[in-house]
Amino acid sequence: MSHRLLTAITRSIARPSRRIVVGAIRSSSTCNDPKHSKQPHFPCVDAHAARESRLAASISSSSPDQSQSGPEPPYARPNPASYHTYHHPSPLPLAYYPTPLPSFNIAYESWGTLSPSKDNVILLHTGLSASSHAASTPLNPADGWWEKFIGPGKALDTNQFFIICTNVLGGCYGSTGPSSIEPATGKPWATRFPILSIFDMINAQFCLLDHLGIKKLYASVGCSMGAMQSLAAGWLHPERVGKIVSISGTARSSPSAVAMRFAQRSVLMADPNWNHGFYYDGLPPHTGMKLARQIATITYRSGPEWDQRFSRKLRPLPETDLPAPGFPRTPALCPDFLIETYLDHQGEQFCLKYDANSLIYISKAMDLFDMTLPTLKSLNLKTSSPSSTQNGVNPDAQQHKTSHSKSHPPPVNPPPHLSDLAAGMAPLAHIPTLVLGVQSDILFTVEQQRELADALRMSGNENVSYYELGGVWGHDTFLIDVLNVGGAIRGFLS
Amino acid sequence: MSHRLLTAITRSIARPSRRIVVGAIRSSSTCNDPKHSKQPHFPCVDAHAARESRLAASISSSSPDQSQSGPEPPYARPNPASYHTYHHPSPLPLAYYPTPLPSFNIAYESWGTLSPSKDNVILLHTGLSASSHAASTPLNPADGWWEKFIGPGKALDTNQFFIICTNVLGGCYGSTGPSSIEPATGKPWATRFPILSIFDMINAQFCLLDHLGIKKLYASVGCSMGAMQSLAAGWLHPERVGKIVSISGTARSSPSAVAMRFAQRSVLMADPNWNHGFYYDGLPPHTGMKLARQIATITYRSGPEWDQRFSRKLRPLPETDLPAPGFPRTPALCPDFLIETYLDHQGEQFCLKYDANSLIYISKAMDLFDMTLPTLKSLNLKTSSPSSTQNGVNPDAQQHKTSHSKSHPPPVNPPPHLSDLAAGMAPLAHIPTLVLGVQSDILFTVEQQRELADALRMSGNENVSYYELGGVWGHDTFLIDVLNVGGAIRGFLS
Repeated sequence: MSHRLLTAITRSIARPSRRIVVGAIRSSSTCNDPKHSKQPHFPCVDAHAARESRLAASISSSSPDQSQSGPEPPYARPNPASYHTYHHPSPLPLAYYPTPLPSFNIAYESWGTLSPSKDNVILLHTGLSASSHAASTPLNPADGWWEKFIGPGKALDTNQFFIICTNVLGGCYGSTGPSSIEPATGKPWATRFPILSIFDMINAQFCLLDHLGIKKLYASVGCSMGAMQSLAAGWLHPERVGKIVSISGTARSSPSAVAMRFAQRSVLMADPNWNHGFYYDGLPPHTGMKLARQIATITYRSGPEWDQRFSRKLRPLPETDLPAPGFPRTPALCPDFLIETYLDHQGEQFCLKYDANSLIYISKAMDLFDMTLPTLKSLNLKTSSPSSTQNGVNPDAQQHKTSHSKSHPPPVNPPPHLSDLAAGMAPLAHIPTLVLGVQSDILFTVEQQRELADALRMSGNENVSYYELGGVWGHDTFLIDVLNVGGAIRGFLS
Repeated sequence: MSHRLLTAITRSIARPSRRIVVGAIRSSSTCNDPKHSKQPHFPCVDAHAARESRLAASISSSSPDQSQSGPEPPYARPNPASYHTYHHPSPLPLAYYPTPLPSFNIAYESWGTLSPSKDNVILLHTGLSASSHAASTPLNPADGWWEKFIGPGKALDTNQFFIICTNVLGGCYGSTGPSSIEPATGKPWATRFPILSIFDMINAQFCLLDHLGIKKLYASVGCSMGAMQSLAAGWLHPERVGKIVSISGTARSSPSAVAMRFAQRSVLMADPNWNHGFYYDGLPPHTGMKLARQIATITYRSGPEWDQRFSRKLRPLPETDLPAPGFPRTPALCPDFLIETYLDHQGEQFCLKYDANSLIYISKAMDLFDMTLPTLKSLNLKTSSPSSTQNGVNPDAQQHKTSHSKSHPPPVNPPPHLSDLAAGMAPLAHIPTLVLGVQSDILFTVEQQRELADALRMSGNENVSYYELGGVWGHDTFLIDVLNVGGAIRGFLS
């Protein structure tokens, strides 16, 4: 048994057994249990220890080969035959560091047929935790995360377009990220991985496009973080992006969105299993991941949806737990309302499906995203725009003109950062852009959608299509509303 | 050294030392550190272990007397001379259990002078984590949580009124709660304490009023959870409440508010120190409390406030950490944006000031609060209303009339629960009520304020004063906006 494996088992078993001993001491102190209640039970808390034990057991039963790198959640054992992988053997410059990333892999999938002139390509960008599997393929027939939006006659029409979706740099589904092996050490990068910018992700994607011989995209399309990437692609390579689609995104992360992602990173990093990010030869921080996903889920949907879907309904009780006739149902501190069981379930489903460090790094990249000119100037970025200066910023950017029509009047009393944003977005002034947002979105608020459209118009972009959707689905609308989201995209791309 | 103390020290020291050993193993594995980054440091995570060590050290240096009950955070060592305590020696019926609470204490403070006829009393209810110390007193000259609202000529005018504020049942500032000693066992109740209803809290308060010989309140006043209590007081004792003030409250907790409190309870209960609630002879779940407070703080303020206050500003770096000229600042995974340092600070300040079990129990009581008739009927409640039925529900409640004026038209397409709410609130139909809400509140949304006012009017209440405030302070507006919140209260009470 390897030293790593032994350490992992020791760590995993130490905690549950300590819990059990402590519990035993406590229960002996409550033998004079009062009339009120039985000894309290907390299945929602015990579930964490039970998961830990299952994971520990999976180590000890794993084959010697697997044990070399510790017990791995499913994401760490992807089937490389189910997607394509591009290996880039040379260094990638990074926005926040003088030293480049030595080399990297990008996992990708595609749909449709590449035209002989390679002019029908749509690059589709994912949200935070999605993989390249946006739709089913012959290599992987499982439904993808945007199954209903990709295909013949759909929003991204495979009769017309060749669609490429990558797993982002920093992710854990085949592209290089914190869980990947660092060439210099032969061990996982963990938190020695450099903090990424959304722009770094785009530069990695364009290395893939170069490899594929694709000179210009018909369109760059993305939702949520993918919308940030979509805008960043246009900024870095304005001559290589024909159209931009930004659904429920932003050009400048708001402090309230940073706050909500900070809360998720905090609970994750407080999980002792996280161990400063060096958990790849031990047990992953599954409890922190579950708690983080519960918080995230709150930001993905909306109060009005839950009013309709759950209201104040309680979970059904097993017959043995039903109160006696005429007595009220005793509440529980563990999930009791349906909204609680829903959040618990969402966390449970996700907690072993994604790498914790990838979540931390990618959510941080979202926080850092800011296309105001002063921020862009401070980064180590180069654009392919011929009009750009050495540091990638257009010197004419400050002298923006406005392109507001009567139906889109310029904002009254625009805040100072809006001018900075318009200046920063000047390279996108000639790219037709669709901005679509959702009024019930609490993560990328509708105010941010208006800000984005205003900044683009102030930068001189005369081809900004802007839509706001109603409905109660909040941020997740882009995953659900095929009719309205799909329709707007289809109209804009045609 | 007592067995408890020994257990506590063993538990507290076991974890930090394990962390250090694991860290040492890791650092030896990263001696071939790549060019990118130094060995990563996470001061925000190490702060948890450092706090744990400080707490453990405070045990071993504590006097034998203190050690009898383990290391206690400041809330558990209140100065009983700084407030009054009423001991109720007989049982208190409970809404969710057939068995009553055997006895209880209520801590309270007062301001102003009780009139000879005892007809000038305002009962002020607290929010979730506040104590009875709403304003300074001769016994405790420190500022209270509503210092600017209580005093001569202020919103609650001590020249005119005698104001009483209690610490709620279930709390940890002198009133009986999970940290109190259970008479039957001589040990802290912990999670064997019964789950409370807001109505139970009111019943305990009215035992105090009986003891003080106060037959009728001039007004019942509260903000946030205090607003729930204010409404519950009117429901249980419609003949004993002259006026009701509900600021940023609700008569029916929404699933989105339940979700946000569930997320807080989840991170708290996942802290291994929580130990199913039995931590009173060990170390408290201070990390879980910090994480829970970070989440709570997000719900107490608003995005627009943070846009104005923090925008995307970063924390100032010490000179030694500044980047070389021309190089970008390297981001950190620990708090870096001011919004992050703010949340971190709020969590740090709170994590030892309040009892974790009290937070869990009281937040649960808020989730459970629902004045719709079917829910009220299911509880074990009695009202003092002569028109009430045996189980506390007015049989005429369903036949409500509406009292909407032209400036307050009845709601269009009211959801079914609104009729149930109006029916449930029938006992309040004759009590003048002020409902005040804040448009930027994401916890008790403005839609909930409108729902409350609509339900009261539909129940036949012809004296509902309704105000909505703008501004960016969110839920916390009631603590800040003396001019508008204070003014509305003063006008309503006069």
